[in-house]
Amino acid sequence: MLPLARSIITLTTDFGTSDPFVAAMKGVILSINPDAQLVDISHDIRPYDVMEAAYVIAQVYHNFPPRTVHLVVVDPGVGTARRPLIVSADRYVFVAPDNGVLSVIYSREESLSVRHIAASHYFLEPVSNTFHGRDIFAPVAAWLSRQVETTKFGELVTDYIKFIPPVPKRVSEKQVKAIVLRVDRFGTLMTNLTAADLPELFQEKPAAFKITVGKGEITQFKTAYAEGTPSELFAILGSSGFVEIASNRGSASQALGVGRGVEVTVVLQ
Amino acid sequence: MLPLARSIITLTTDFGTSDPFVAAMKGVILSINPDAQLVDISHDIRPYDVMEAAYVIAQVYHNFPPRTVHLVVVDPGVGTARRPLIVSADRYVFVAPDNGVLSVIYSREESLSVRHIAASHYFLEPVSNTFHGRDIFAPVAAWLSRQVETTKFGELVTDYIKFIPPVPKRVSEKQVKAIVLRVDRFGTLMTNLTAADLPELFQEKPAAFKITVGKGEITQFKTAYAEGTPSELFAILGSSGFVEIASNRGSASQALGVGRGVEVTVVLQ
Amino acid sequence: MLPLARSIITLTTDFGTSDPFVAAMKGVILSINPDAQLVDISHDIRPYDVMEAAYVIAQVYHNFPPRTVHLVVVDPGVGTARRPLIVSADRYVFVAPDNGVLSVIYSREESLSVRHIAASHYFLEPVSNTFHGRDIFAPVAAWLSRQVETTKFGELVTDYIKFIPPVPKRVSEKQVKAIVLRVDRFGTLMTNLTAADLPELFQEKPAAFKITVGKGEITQFKTAYAEGTPSELFAILGSSGFVEIASNRGSASQALGVGRGVEVTVVLQ
Repeated sequence: MLPLARSIITLTTDFGTSDPFVAAMKGVILSINPDAQLVDISHDIRPYDVMEAAYVIAQVYHNFPPRTVHLVVVDPGVGTARRPLIVSADRYVFVAPDNGVLSVIYSREESLSVRHIAASHYFLEPVSNTFHGRDIFAPVAAWLSRQVETTKFGELVTDYIKFIPPVPKRVSEKQVKAIVLRVDRFGTLMTNLTAADLPELFQEKPAAFKITVGKGEITQFKTAYAEGTPSELFAILGSSGFVEIASNRGSASQALGVGRGVEVTVVLQ
Repeated sequence: MLPLARSIITLTTDFGTSDPFVAAMKGVILSINPDAQLVDISHDIRPYDVMEAAYVIAQVYHNFPPRTVHLVVVDPGVGTARRPLIVSADRYVFVAPDNGVLSVIYSREESLSVRHIAASHYFLEPVSNTFHGRDIFAPVAAWLSRQVETTKFGELVTDYIKFIPPVPKRVSEKQVKAIVLRVDRFGTLMTNLTAADLPELFQEKPAAFKITVGKGEITQFKTAYAEGTPSELFAILGSSGFVEIASNRGSASQALGVGRGVEVTVVLQ
Repeated sequence: MLPLARSIITLTTDFGTSDPFVAAMKGVILSINPDAQLVDISHDIRPYDVMEAAYVIAQVYHNFPPRTVHLVVVDPGVGTARRPLIVSADRYVFVAPDNGVLSVIYSREESLSVRHIAASHYFLEPVSNTFHGRDIFAPVAAWLSRQVETTKFGELVTDYIKFIPPVPKRVSEKQVKAIVLRVDRFGTLMTNLTAADLPELFQEKPAAFKITVGKGEITQFKTAYAEGTPSELFAILGSSGFVEIASNRGSASQALGVGRGVEVTVVLQ
């Protein structure tokens, strides 16, 4: 019943928004497809942080209409032999460098086809060695949004680079080791724990537990941020399906003095 | 003579733009209404600061075409009993939590109807307890932008939460007490004083005056920022209709060492 | 073969994105032309920094489709006698205050016509003295995007303000003095040197050289950022055609302790 999507292109980069790099990409896209609807995912990925970008795009790509083109440019290897890729999943198309930045997508999507972009007549000439976001990735995304078939851009490849996203480990019957994937603007710690990793906490009568992060111990599970009393730390199932360590109107990250990459230990009782 | 507006949806949140929360909302909106024109008002509202958001949306909502849907999500009570609301004014529709975030709108618009959003078939299922911006507010705004009637979403309510925006007080014939509502990027202090509060300063032959803020005394009124000499502080009627304390190419906030919430005393002579 | 452009309006300001100033301009534009496609170039120009804005818009204006309207509002003289201008180049139209903010455009475009905007019936009434971005520049850009002819807005002028953008100087046969124009998010220093200033470095067998910036000496030229070894500083031809001083996954600006405006000396050997 929903109307077919207009051609939507999302952008995820480490370019920031002070420099006009993102605008250059948008100008190039609109020169090819003036009707494209452009949506910024984030341009504040830490410079060169391929794994952060991998998680950020994975958090929201499925909220967009089918046929959305997701453009992800965190590209420390620009100008070297690393390949530009088109990755087609069931409902979405991704355009990105072959450096692992789509690793979380690879681990979530079942039927993928990955192509090495080689058809240089779609590029913005002359192609620089320092800004393929503008010269290769943006024009390819724009042509894809105009329904040029992916087969036109290059051959299928299977040896693309894929990091294994860190998954929680059950180190004993009662203990699970996880990590903090990301700290959001509110200071909430997003861990890599899902309900599937801790079924004991999501059963009808949840088990007692202790989560250790930094110097803190968390023993409460809440279902809404506002249920916590001031300065209390608690666990909560976040909107992306990951367990979070949070605080009501306060920063858990600040309270615990920890950030991304820190170990999280769950002990069930 | 102007063309009818395309469906425009504005977004005001405390989500920042580094995390992909705003993008998630936009993806949901475009999945329902791919032709929506999305405009960011601000995503840098201080976390949980309902009153700041109330002033920010009030500053610009009327600059948009009639029928614009204004989505305001500063929502510390997400997942609790606080209600989601649709607020219809003469020319605009607002979608927001019932926590006072539309208080300044309530005080400016005359004919309002306020509805409690209850029709869950418009929501993004399953509705999380932690991100109603994505799961409730965004889809409702999108359906409203497709001209679904407000009556379809829920019943009228009258007991919605409304803060009384702070108004200047004339404490004696010659003295008015006001406050700083906001400091902008240039360090200019926006007070809650309007021309109506100080007719003596806006008459043909304006009265002499002294404004005290922090350690500073202001006795000049200018009509353009560039009229001030370097480091001089002066009062000026700002573009939102409020009296501002400003400095030509300098930060009044820094010069005075004061910020939002600080008292402003006007003494007429 | 490309479709004609929809009406695109870009925005470059020093307003930041926390305050709702940019949103006010967008609301005004969409009230006049609801089909306009709005693209942010940057809103993080340093407050009042006309020269920074001049370089930022010059870096990307040509990446947009013909007939794009570029709106540039860095306007410390708002409310004074400084004139609002429409500047028509071959393929683009610019709307900006007459304070030199289009100086780099003036130096790059050959056939320009510059008009003093005077037709106040296109303005948002009442025109404030403090926010011509909203009251004059935005509505004029919107009417231009609806194909109102530039002649309708005012008379041609020739005495508009133009800074001479700083160009490198060959101080002797073997020595060139240049400056750092801009530091980007990655800490890369963009100089004002182009290949034309240093043909010796871009010939088939490039000359040896030494570039001095701050306390650093650079003697390597690379063709991709990733060619540098960790912490090595090198020169590279950037995507805007200027020579940059960069570091692979590190900040050249931080390593050298220098920023915008600093002198760069090239000695050829």
